[in-house]
Amino acid sequence: MARVVVEVMPKPEILDPQGKAVTGALERLGFTGLQVRQGKLFEIEVDGEITDDVVTRVREAADKLLANTVIENFEVHIEKLSVEDKAENADQTKAEKTGKSGKDAKK
Amino acid sequence: MARVVVEVMPKPEILDPQGKAVTGALERLGFTGLQVRQGKLFEIEVDGEITDDVVTRVREAADKLLANTVIENFEVHIEKLSVEDKAENADQTKAEKTGKSGKDAKK
Repeated sequence: MARVVVEVMPKPEILDPQGKAVTGALERLGFTGLQVRQGKLFEIEVDGEITDDVVTRVREAADKLLANTVIENFEVHIEKLSVEDKAENADQTKAEKTGKSGKDAKK
Repeated sequence: MARVVVEVMPKPEILDPQGKAVTGALERLGFTGLQVRQGKLFEIEVDGEITDDVVTRVREAADKLLANTVIENFEVHIEKLSVEDKAENADQTKAEKTGKSGKDAKK
């Protein structure tokens, strides 16, 4: 099993106020000498196999919605799932089901 | 040259409203069959070499500030910089300097 990961970061030439704010907060907590830039991370589960077509579609989705390509760059890569991740995934699907079945149970 | 990367994701058992919203928006744009979870990505430049101590300090910083460990998991890894990344880094430092020199120039 695998998933597609999209990493979105501010373009280097664009000033990153959020990263600056985190850098300042870390300094006040005593963590000096760390320059932080903050971006977004998307983990995407797909139905069935991850083919080239799927990766192309995720790239289009990133270009249209996940990243603001005027001020952000994005990278797309495939992440093989370890056994641990698979167990995590099972937890997550259970969390969604219990969310649903919780409603059914109230009827 | 290298940098430390911190990836923060919602815990699997925690429902992810942000990821659900992105999944729904993608569906409305015609990107069906993609289940999205959204997290945060931090790229951290450090002064000097990346030693085990530095990684331990970044892990502490992630635990204290970058992640809300009640509802989020985080992973820390070192990312070697390719030549391209180094050029990007040079742009970013220039962007910060012009930000500053812009102010100086007005005096």
